[in-house]
Amino acid sequence: MDGYRAPLDDIRFTLEHVVPLSTLSALPQFVHADGDTLAALLEEAGRFAEEVVAPTNRDGDGEGARIEHGGVVTPASFHSAYERYVASGWGAMQHPEEHGGGGFPLLAATAVKELITSANMAFSLNPLLTTGAVHLLTHHGSEEQKARYLPRMVTGEWAGTMNLTEPQAGSDVGAVTARAEPIGDGRYRITGQKIYITYGDHDLSEQIVHLVLARLPDAPPGTKGISLFIVPKFLVEDDGSLGARNDVQVVSLEHKLGIHASPTCVMAFGESEGGAIGELVGDPHDGMRQMFTMMNDARLGIGLQGLAIAERAAQHAEAYARDRLQGRAPGAAPGAQSPIIDHPDVRRMLLESRATIDAMRALCYENARAIDLALHAPDEDARRHGQRIADLLTPLSKSWCTDLGVELTSTALQVFGGMGYVEETGVAQHLRDARIAPIYEGTNGIQAIDLVMRKLPSDAGATVLSLLDDLVPDDLPSELADLADPLARARDAARTATEALLSRGDRPLDVLAGASPYLRLLSTVLATGLVVRGLVAAHAAAVDSALPGLGPDVLAARTLRARVLVTRVLPIVHGLAPVVTAGADDLYALTPDAAGV
Amino acid sequence: MDGYRAPLDDIRFTLEHVVPLSTLSALPQFVHADGDTLAALLEEAGRFAEEVVAPTNRDGDGEGARIEHGGVVTPASFHSAYERYVASGWGAMQHPEEHGGGGFPLLAATAVKELITSANMAFSLNPLLTTGAVHLLTHHGSEEQKARYLPRMVTGEWAGTMNLTEPQAGSDVGAVTARAEPIGDGRYRITGQKIYITYGDHDLSEQIVHLVLARLPDAPPGTKGISLFIVPKFLVEDDGSLGARNDVQVVSLEHKLGIHASPTCVMAFGESEGGAIGELVGDPHDGMRQMFTMMNDARLGIGLQGLAIAERAAQHAEAYARDRLQGRAPGAAPGAQSPIIDHPDVRRMLLESRATIDAMRALCYENARAIDLALHAPDEDARRHGQRIADLLTPLSKSWCTDLGVELTSTALQVFGGMGYVEETGVAQHLRDARIAPIYEGTNGIQAIDLVMRKLPSDAGATVLSLLDDLVPDDLPSELADLADPLARARDAARTATEALLSRGDRPLDVLAGASPYLRLLSTVLATGLVVRGLVAAHAAAVDSALPGLGPDVLAARTLRARVLVTRVLPIVHGLAPVVTAGADDLYALTPDAAGV
Repeated sequence: MDGYRAPLDDIRFTLEHVVPLSTLSALPQFVHADGDTLAALLEEAGRFAEEVVAPTNRDGDGEGARIEHGGVVTPASFHSAYERYVASGWGAMQHPEEHGGGGFPLLAATAVKELITSANMAFSLNPLLTTGAVHLLTHHGSEEQKARYLPRMVTGEWAGTMNLTEPQAGSDVGAVTARAEPIGDGRYRITGQKIYITYGDHDLSEQIVHLVLARLPDAPPGTKGISLFIVPKFLVEDDGSLGARNDVQVVSLEHKLGIHASPTCVMAFGESEGGAIGELVGDPHDGMRQMFTMMNDARLGIGLQGLAIAERAAQHAEAYARDRLQGRAPGAAPGAQSPIIDHPDVRRMLLESRATIDAMRALCYENARAIDLALHAPDEDARRHGQRIADLLTPLSKSWCTDLGVELTSTALQVFGGMGYVEETGVAQHLRDARIAPIYEGTNGIQAIDLVMRKLPSDAGATVLSLLDDLVPDDLPSELADLADPLARARDAARTATEALLSRGDRPLDVLAGASPYLRLLSTVLATGLVVRGLVAAHAAAVDSALPGLGPDVLAARTLRARVLVTRVLPIVHGLAPVVTAGADDLYALTPDAAGV
Repeated sequence: MDGYRAPLDDIRFTLEHVVPLSTLSALPQFVHADGDTLAALLEEAGRFAEEVVAPTNRDGDGEGARIEHGGVVTPASFHSAYERYVASGWGAMQHPEEHGGGGFPLLAATAVKELITSANMAFSLNPLLTTGAVHLLTHHGSEEQKARYLPRMVTGEWAGTMNLTEPQAGSDVGAVTARAEPIGDGRYRITGQKIYITYGDHDLSEQIVHLVLARLPDAPPGTKGISLFIVPKFLVEDDGSLGARNDVQVVSLEHKLGIHASPTCVMAFGESEGGAIGELVGDPHDGMRQMFTMMNDARLGIGLQGLAIAERAAQHAEAYARDRLQGRAPGAAPGAQSPIIDHPDVRRMLLESRATIDAMRALCYENARAIDLALHAPDEDARRHGQRIADLLTPLSKSWCTDLGVELTSTALQVFGGMGYVEETGVAQHLRDARIAPIYEGTNGIQAIDLVMRKLPSDAGATVLSLLDDLVPDDLPSELADLADPLARARDAARTATEALLSRGDRPLDVLAGASPYLRLLSTVLATGLVVRGLVAAHAAAVDSALPGLGPDVLAARTLRARVLVTRVLPIVHGLAPVVTAGADDLYALTPDAAGV
């Protein structure tokens, strides 16, 4: 029952109709990423996730990561799974062909990442961090650095990490104090301590390439004085072989609520030999800007975790609710015990969850497609449009999907009743694992600030308002016609809330006080809009021919779930709208002491 | 920072104005429970909770309960805390004086229970179960049984347990199969296995009195054939001393997400000597009805856990948010690091949580008061009215407060950022502990069914509708006048939803599909109404005299928080109302397989 089944029908429906991959495979550099190729790849990735990665999830949680002899030991089952991950090339998929990557759109890689994250979120964090490091070096590394590091990082043969956070510098990255002293040969000695370093050390790859934020001696204070350095665990010789051990050590691991198998390290740079040898990436003091180039990808990657873990938990709950007999559902034969999935409140939880997951997937995938278009669309206008959509959707994917990841794993646990609270069932692990995602890579509160203070006002709301204008398709098929009204009402609520925030540009406290509820409101509306748009496209396609490879069943299922989404999930916007515009006066009317908080 | 501070001002404000204790201490049997007496008691109970119980919370979680030599060993720190609990007499407070109890109203005992549960939820479960057992024996035991068991159970010197659940009988108690065979001397031999037995065994008391549901040989099937038995861990001799060990054993403990220090036992009755010796309570086949007499108390007790753990977590987050410097809040001096409590999104989380906790406390305490009135009001009409209110509010307290317990502990964790995900902070424990409460003592889905299928229609909605009629006070003081409109709109939404459900009495599936959102909607509206009513009373009292012992600060704080409640928490009802009336057609339009769930 704990087994994971790759939701290939749902993913393919999304890529065919909701977030059409064809809009990308029409581009010259993605001609090889056509639907058939991807369908075959997804089959294979699904099998890999189900058979190789998913079985490591429970024992990884139980065994956890630990420090032995100064190094991190990961769960036994991770070793062969990671070896096969590297050998299979899944990690290389989205990276440029010139560095040995597959040259696939991020959208295609996103589908594969979803599968592997559902299978084992703690395992998937290692490739996630490596991908971020590859991304940074691809964009900002010198040719020499790229040649030295990228080919083996692209495959995952070498892992990568991101070393940003320090005890006093969490959400405020500008407060970083780690230091980098030039040593004369173009290299630097890095000193300082970093915390919360995911897979900061481990035994899955022979080499770990740390990317580290630190300050040069002449650095100005704040974010403008932060530089980015490559600090490999082992120095790399000119022939590419591994040389001496660098002066970087894992000091301790955090004892966390979840993702036990993912080592969260305190890292010490330069505590043994006076400094870890590092290379500067790009220009001095340019570290923050460099980090920003990967921010959309990284934050989308976390949003995807919310989706992936919700999917895994939902499958778990669906299977349990089919098996578990308890009480008699309305309409069942007298004396019969019914599977709890037949009880209305359980059916409600499962269908609402499933409908919400459809919407989460639509949002994450559309976000990925926008990033692809921002980079690869043939004309400048289309790239700029893609960038605007990507910038807008990223905080939504990150926050909305991770908040829902927590809520839906909790719902899945509830479906299990008492069995859900017992760890051996495995469903509690999903909630524990999911709970980190609203925190890291910028807390969800930070995302909401980004949305209302930067993304929304950057074009005076034009992008948001134009998406809202298009929200209710004027070609709804007749079986969905009654959805037009609730959709239009939700759109109107979103528009009113948006305009209210835009009109308060001179009162930032009022805007900030509405940031989080607005993020949820807007995400719910836009993601629902994507689902409905996809459904309209699918109905249109099904008029001429059955959905290729999917058949009428999938269309019927998706149509029903879209109804559930619009009638049972979307209405939350009417509860959020008044809160968005409530302003900050009450929040600051008394000091915290006087208010008793 | 992890320290717990008894929220005496908030509790006393609640008991003075929101849920007036004076309405009970006016009754002859409660004359000793006047405000001054209770204020002194609360001071003492607060100190006990802060100094004796709260320090056991973290180490209890880390150490957990375990089985050694066939018995359960509880955390070391629990032993002296429990000893002092028994000696202090807190457990006796609500029980009748004739059995050695304090004869206080449940409302007064509820305040003390809140304090002890906040201090350590896992610890508090032991007295909670004992209280339930005392309650059952008080109402249904023979005089001889009462004399034998109650005096020492009332103090907690002997503990009590409730043995209902079996693997095939969770929510469906009627499926119980444990057997009771008469042995001729008026006693019975009990055989069978029970699961999820809270404190089924432990080393805190010399004796444990198990109350066990089982079937007599001639029992009809289902709930009508269940009888209730007393099965003591040690047989009790005629002189009251402990005799032979009975044939009841703990088999194993569950490895749970939280409340690690509370042993959740699988219990075996009659596996060694062919049956545990038991005494029948009351009449044969009357077990379910007997259980029902304690159901309101027990379920309120769980709702109170949601409140108590939310209070503890909120305090934890408030303290952290004051200490933690990060970034610059709007309006802070350039270059300054602000405490995160000054950032709008953090301030929002804390104030919304605090306002919600006020409402949860109002609801739980009003529920307790209604139970008191149902038992002790001088005239029959008032008792009947109290019973109706208690019956209605109980599923609301249980579900709404426990759902919010999970949500607010999760919010507290979010305030901590990365530190919240690390177990050593202790805030993750609150979330883990809180997560059981929506499950046990009837899942929250079961509560919602109880609300819409029994409580609401039992008087054709009269109780609910009359509470809604009184929801908006017509004497709102001028500083609250602007709350009348949002209150009235919420009331109207609740009324519409209520009438919609009542009109669908012939379509149970439609009603059941709206049960959970309706429960949340109605709870939010009624609890907000209680808070506002209390505030009106407090403002009226403050016109003549300062609030006794509280002063104007508390009134200002509570007024602000009521504003936050009405403007930022209450509006959720407008998101729930459409879902309540969405009906069940979509949920059952396709089979689960066809819908892809």
